Amino acid sequence: MVEACICTIGDEILIGQIVDSNSAYIARELNGIGVKVNSIISIGDDFELIFETLKETLQKYNLIIITGGLGPTKDDITKKVISLLTGDLEMVYDTVQLDLIEKICLRRGIALSGLNRDQALVPISCTVLPNYRGTAPGMFFKPKEYPNKLLFSLPGVPYEMEALMESVCNTILKEYKPENIFHKTIATYGMAESSLADYLDKWESSLPHDVKLAYLPNPATGIKLRLSIYSGEKESSVKKVEILSAELKELLGEIVYGEGSDTLESVVYDILKDKKLTLSIAESCTGGRISGMITSIPGSSEIFMGGVVAYSNNSKIDILGVNGETIEQFGAVSRECAEEMASGIRNLLNSDYSLAVTGITGPSGGTPNKPTGTVWVAVSSKKGVISESIIFAGDRERNTVRFASFALNKLRLELKKHL
Amino acid sequence: MVEACICTIGDEILIGQIVDSNSAYIARELNGIGVKVNSIISIGDDFELIFETLKETLQKYNLIIITGGLGPTKDDITKKVISLLTGDLEMVYDTVQLDLIEKICLRRGIALSGLNRDQALVPISCTVLPNYRGTAPGMFFKPKEYPNKLLFSLPGVPYEMEALMESVCNTILKEYKPENIFHKTIATYGMAESSLADYLDKWESSLPHDVKLAYLPNPATGIKLRLSIYSGEKESSVKKVEILSAELKELLGEIVYGEGSDTLESVVYDILKDKKLTLSIAESCTGGRISGMITSIPGSSEIFMGGVVAYSNNSKIDILGVNGETIEQFGAVSRECAEEMASGIRNLLNSDYSLAVTGITGPSGGTPNKPTGTVWVAVSSKKGVISESIIFAGDRERNTVRFASFALNKLRLELKKHL
Repeated sequence: MVEACICTIGDEILIGQIVDSNSAYIARELNGIGVKVNSIISIGDDFELIFETLKETLQKYNLIIITGGLGPTKDDITKKVISLLTGDLEMVYDTVQLDLIEKICLRRGIALSGLNRDQALVPISCTVLPNYRGTAPGMFFKPKEYPNKLLFSLPGVPYEMEALMESVCNTILKEYKPENIFHKTIATYGMAESSLADYLDKWESSLPHDVKLAYLPNPATGIKLRLSIYSGEKESSVKKVEILSAELKELLGEIVYGEGSDTLESVVYDILKDKKLTLSIAESCTGGRISGMITSIPGSSEIFMGGVVAYSNNSKIDILGVNGETIEQFGAVSRECAEEMASGIRNLLNSDYSLAVTGITGPSGGTPNKPTGTVWVAVSSKKGVISESIIFAGDRERNTVRFASFALNKLRLELKKHL
Repeated sequence: MVEACICTIGDEILIGQIVDSNSAYIARELNGIGVKVNSIISIGDDFELIFETLKETLQKYNLIIITGGLGPTKDDITKKVISLLTGDLEMVYDTVQLDLIEKICLRRGIALSGLNRDQALVPISCTVLPNYRGTAPGMFFKPKEYPNKLLFSLPGVPYEMEALMESVCNTILKEYKPENIFHKTIATYGMAESSLADYLDKWESSLPHDVKLAYLPNPATGIKLRLSIYSGEKESSVKKVEILSAELKELLGEIVYGEGSDTLESVVYDILKDKKLTLSIAESCTGGRISGMITSIPGSSEIFMGGVVAYSNNSKIDILGVNGETIEQFGAVSRECAEEMASGIRNLLNSDYSLAVTGITGPSGGTPNKPTGTVWVAVSSKKGVISESIIFAGDRERNTVRFASFALNKLRLELKKHL
């Protein structure tokens, strides 16, 4: 099996200024071609440390993918370290990348500087993977002193790195014939991890020895269950996991909302699109997040009529037509208000379905009767309005995303009930 | 100097199913108390690998913080590895955590299972850091075989881990007297990294040898510039970096929008709140994201009147009062439409300022005249309406966040101009 190590470089990671999202992207891509990632290491912009770390990882793993440390500024030193490590001290300008750099500067309306030009300067032994999205090229090395090992160096900007991963994967597939790894993930919403584990205990114990079940809890979007098989012939492995995942879905019923990379919003979108139904959204406490989740899906304009962020009481009354007395009598966070918001936005935008959310995300605004974390959700359609409440115990950010998931799940269940 | 290693455990990280955001959080907290994080390592749920990795890191670093691998389910093995590593095979129930587990199960309305109870089972030598937000306790070890080394094990769920970091930091401060690290970050929007680097080249070369300048580019929110000083007496270090950052701000002028953890939305919020002004937002292509960014700020209800996600042409016309002929003549993505949206939402919600955004995020919808990535932004106030357009070259997700930042920055510049 090809065993890989991802190495992300940058002081900004080590002081926690940015979250390293590159590793997850690279890991997913490598997994997709059957390469197992054994370890992810992040280190700062320190020459010695980068040198030592790369040396160690080249001894342990077949494949190293480095990101970061290739920018035009003075804190970027990765290229120098690799030169030293590969004993490849002669640097040459790569004409393809130089041409790209010139074009990018032109497009951005900035003068071509010496710093920019030097980004095309690469160790002579490397194969350049041209970067069409930015100025720093990707580089591929087969270091002489480490036979059968592959080393890739990619820019740290996610958008640029992502575009280069295709050539990285193609190069790896040419050099190795990776083994099979097969995963299947099932997404659930509405059951706690320990309850789920208890419920599945017997079934899990009966799994074949080469199949692994993992629980991936997310406080907002529920628990994903991943079945993995790391060995065997591809076709039979795929079949085995497919059969087991079908069993699992059967066992779990309606708490299962999707597979793989499905999200609550993508599942809701799929149902609406499939049935040619439209949606509108009225949000108070979630402040536009749910609309944002829906519109993150390409093609959502087909099903999404629009939304109102009715943050103030006046906007609930003036735009959505909520009765002022309702708010006075029951409060803005109430079944009554949520239902009127749902009806109001559905009328306003003339959609088949509507979703309304009103709650208290915190930190302030809670009362003994309606503590922070209280949310009311309503779904309206021509079949009527239904609503439900729940109390979460998180901070502002956490409550916002939990409210959004709770609301989307409610909409999903309603859509499934009616169809 | 206390040198730390963060070790995050879980197959889900190695296959890229989740992004490890815990490390960044922990790194920030450690940095805050003067602990330097030298390395972050992520490994899978593999007994041998966890054992070997922890052994190596205990040799290299003074302080190891582990997250993950403490859940109630079968794939969690961290506790067993640490027992073996510390030679501490006797396990006992921690009564404080057991009590918390019982309460949490009661609150969640689920039966207390054996799996849950066993989460309170810890190696006898550890000091338990009670987890009030979840069932798995934090643990603190001073392993006998590794004198002067500290080992912490924390749950992998971010919300639970975050709450435990306070006791972790307090424990570290009791055990060590960490040295000073001081960072100061300045946030800029509107200038490319290489232009900025060229512009600052001379100034950067004149920096004292113990001060480091780093460029942290973010394709959406601009470039942060971080000045770091790693040594010296605290008061003089702080003063030195303060003077240099003041110089830097002077050099850069209005592209500087903030410091430290300031965001474009927090800066806009601060100005509005300070001047007792209100804001409303009309979004088309950004689908509620900008409202979501503003409402993520606690207290935003004081300044934010509400928003409309006018995704369809009809919603632009019916709710915002955009003239149908404007859309017919100039298109929904035009200066004219953006300006009418801004005026419309400001009238509707009677706010002092309003922001409107209309554009093409892609993947479809672009034309030769208005390619994907085109966005029009308008700001309305009693002083009139201004608008501006730009073309970005990203994918849907990237364009959405870039449009949002561009719009917020435009609003910031307008607010500053008027005040």
